[in-house]
Amino acid sequence: MALIKRVTFKLNEVFYQKPFHITNSVRSSSKVIAIALELDNGIIGRGEASPSFRVNGEIETVLMGFETPISEMLRNREVQRYRPLFDTLDKFSRSAPSLKAGVQYAILDAFSTLISTPVYEILGGAKEYVETDFTISIDSLENTVQDAKKASEKGFKILKLKVGEDLPSDIARVLAVQEALPSMHFVVDANMGYTPKQAVTFAEAMVSNGVKMDLFEQPVWSDDFDGLRFVRQHSGIPICADESAKTRFDALRLIREECVDYINIKLMKSGISDALAIVELARSAHVGLMIGCMSESGVGIAQSVHFACGTGAFTHHDLDSPFLLKETTPYKYRTEGCRLLPIG
Amino acid sequence: MALIKRVTFKLNEVFYQKPFHITNSVRSSSKVIAIALELDNGIIGRGEASPSFRVNGEIETVLMGFETPISEMLRNREVQRYRPLFDTLDKFSRSAPSLKAGVQYAILDAFSTLISTPVYEILGGAKEYVETDFTISIDSLENTVQDAKKASEKGFKILKLKVGEDLPSDIARVLAVQEALPSMHFVVDANMGYTPKQAVTFAEAMVSNGVKMDLFEQPVWSDDFDGLRFVRQHSGIPICADESAKTRFDALRLIREECVDYINIKLMKSGISDALAIVELARSAHVGLMIGCMSESGVGIAQSVHFACGTGAFTHHDLDSPFLLKETTPYKYRTEGCRLLPIG
Repeated sequence: MALIKRVTFKLNEVFYQKPFHITNSVRSSSKVIAIALELDNGIIGRGEASPSFRVNGEIETVLMGFETPISEMLRNREVQRYRPLFDTLDKFSRSAPSLKAGVQYAILDAFSTLISTPVYEILGGAKEYVETDFTISIDSLENTVQDAKKASEKGFKILKLKVGEDLPSDIARVLAVQEALPSMHFVVDANMGYTPKQAVTFAEAMVSNGVKMDLFEQPVWSDDFDGLRFVRQHSGIPICADESAKTRFDALRLIREECVDYINIKLMKSGISDALAIVELARSAHVGLMIGCMSESGVGIAQSVHFACGTGAFTHHDLDSPFLLKETTPYKYRTEGCRLLPIG
Repeated sequence: MALIKRVTFKLNEVFYQKPFHITNSVRSSSKVIAIALELDNGIIGRGEASPSFRVNGEIETVLMGFETPISEMLRNREVQRYRPLFDTLDKFSRSAPSLKAGVQYAILDAFSTLISTPVYEILGGAKEYVETDFTISIDSLENTVQDAKKASEKGFKILKLKVGEDLPSDIARVLAVQEALPSMHFVVDANMGYTPKQAVTFAEAMVSNGVKMDLFEQPVWSDDFDGLRFVRQHSGIPICADESAKTRFDALRLIREECVDYINIKLMKSGISDALAIVELARSAHVGLMIGCMSESGVGIAQSVHFACGTGAFTHHDLDSPFLLKETTPYKYRTEGCRLLPIG
C-alpha cells in the first residue's frame, strides 16, 4: 500500500523562441505549474499544468490556490486506486482543467514508479514513438515561408499553420508555403477565427489549389456546434474540433450532432480521465484523433508523449512545444529529430 | 521484453447445480474454453471463453479451430503492447467474441504477472470487492419462491429473476417472491421474450404493486432498438440492454437513439477492449452500467471480478455463475458470502 502524502505546486515561466501569434492572441512567454505528488514511501510523481485563459478561463495565480485543497483531498489515499482519484479530480473539469490533467498524470507517474512500469505501458504500449508536426503562428507571408522552409529542412513532415484573423491574407499565406514546399502536408488551425461561411470559402480555396490539407482545425467559435457541422457538410477537408471539445460530454455531443471528422485531444483541456474517454468515444464513432498541447515544458509534454504512445490512438501529433520554447528539459522522454520517444 | 510464445485452448464442461431455464432455453451444462498464453520467459497468462450460441452464434467445437490462427497472430509479439494485441483480437468481435474476451484477458493476466501488479490495479483499482446478485431461472411459482428464500437466507440482497415466456405467470411469480421477501430488490430479465407492449404491461404491473425492481433487462428482441426505446419511454423502471449491446458500436447506437437507461456489459459479448469503451461511453452519456456473465467457471469469473473492481464502473453485478455451477475453482479471486474479491 502506497499512500499519497502531499501534493505541491510550483509556478514557473517558459519563454517562446519567437512571439507566438494566433487568432486574437500574441504571447512571448507562458506560465506553467510544476506538480509534485509525494507518496509516504518517498516516491515522487511529477506532472505539469499548462493553464490557458483563452481556452479554459484559467489564471495561474488563482490556480495556485488549489494546492492545499487538492493536497487535502488526495492525502492518505492509495495511489494504486487511480480511478477513484481521477473521479475526485473530475470535479475540476471546469474550474481548473489543466490542474486536473497535471495532478492526474502525477498520480499515474507515481503509480508507474511504484510498479516499475512506464506510464505508456500501463496505458497499452501501442507505439514506441510519435512524430510531431511543427506549428507556425501568424506572421507576414515572407516570414511564414521562411519559417516553413526551416522546419522542412529540420525534417518536419507536417506543418501546422495558424490562420483566422484575415481570410484573404490567410489564403495567400498558405498558398505561398504550398508553392515553396509542394510535398508538405498541413494542418490548418483557425482557432475559432472564422464565420462558418468564411471557413467554407477558405476550405474551397485550399481544395481548388490542391493544398495537401490533412485537417481544418476549429474553424468557428467553440460553442457554435451548428456552425461546425455546416462547415463539415460543405467542405471537402476533414473538420477537427479543438476548443469545442473539452470534456467527454462535449465529445459525445459533437459525435451525436455529427459535427466533426476529427477531435483534437489536449490533456490540458480534458485531463487523463476525459482524454481516455474521448479516445474510446472517437474510436466507437469512427472519428479521427489528433493530440495537441498548450505551452507545456519538458514534464508537461512527457504526459502527452506517454498518453499518445500508450493508447496509439492518434494519426496526428501536435506536441511541438519543446521545439517552440527556449529551454525545456525532457522528463521521461527523449527527442530524435521530430520524434518523441517515451522512457520508463 | 517479453514475447508471446503460444496460445493454447482446452475445452471443458461445467455443470449447473439445477437446470438453467431462461426464455426458450434450458441447459444442465455448458462448455468453456480454458486459454493459456505462454510467454518466452515461462510466464503463463490465463483466460477463459464461455461461448454462447444464443447470444453470439458461437459453437465451442468450431471455436477450437481458432487456436492455431490466433496463436500464430500473437506469436513473437510483446505482451506489454497490449492495445495493438487487443486491436488484432477485435477482428473476432463478431466471429468469436468469447474467445476475443478470453485471449485479451490472458494477455492482461500475463502482463500483470510480468509487472507483479494485479489486473484490477492496472485497470484503476477502484474497488476492493463487488457483491453479486443471485439468478433464479424460470421455474414454477412454488420453486421460485423457495429458491428466492434460500438465496435471501444466504445473504444475497438483489435477486435476478428470469421472465419472458408467459406474461401472466411471470407477473404472478415476481409478485409471489415480492410478497415472500418484501425488502428484496430485483433485476428482472426477459431475455428478449416480450413484445414492446407486453413489456410495458409487465413494467406497469411491477410499478403498481410496488415491486422494488431496480432494472428491467432486455425486454424485447435484440435488434428492436425502436422497441427498446418504446419500452423505455413508456415505463417507470430503468431499461437495461443486454443482448442489444454487444460491441462498442451497439452501445453508441443505443445511446444516440436514447434506447436505454442501463447497459449490461458482459466480457463474453464485448471482450476487454469494447467493454472498456462501453464503460467510457456510458459514463459520458450518464447511462448506468451492470456487469453480467455467461457460464464462466473460476478463471472466467476472475476476469469480470478484476474488470469490475478495476474500473469501478458498475452499480449492479450479476457474476453469480460460481454460485450456480457445481464445481468451480476461483482463480485470482476469492468469495466471501456474496462478495467477490480480486487477488493479485
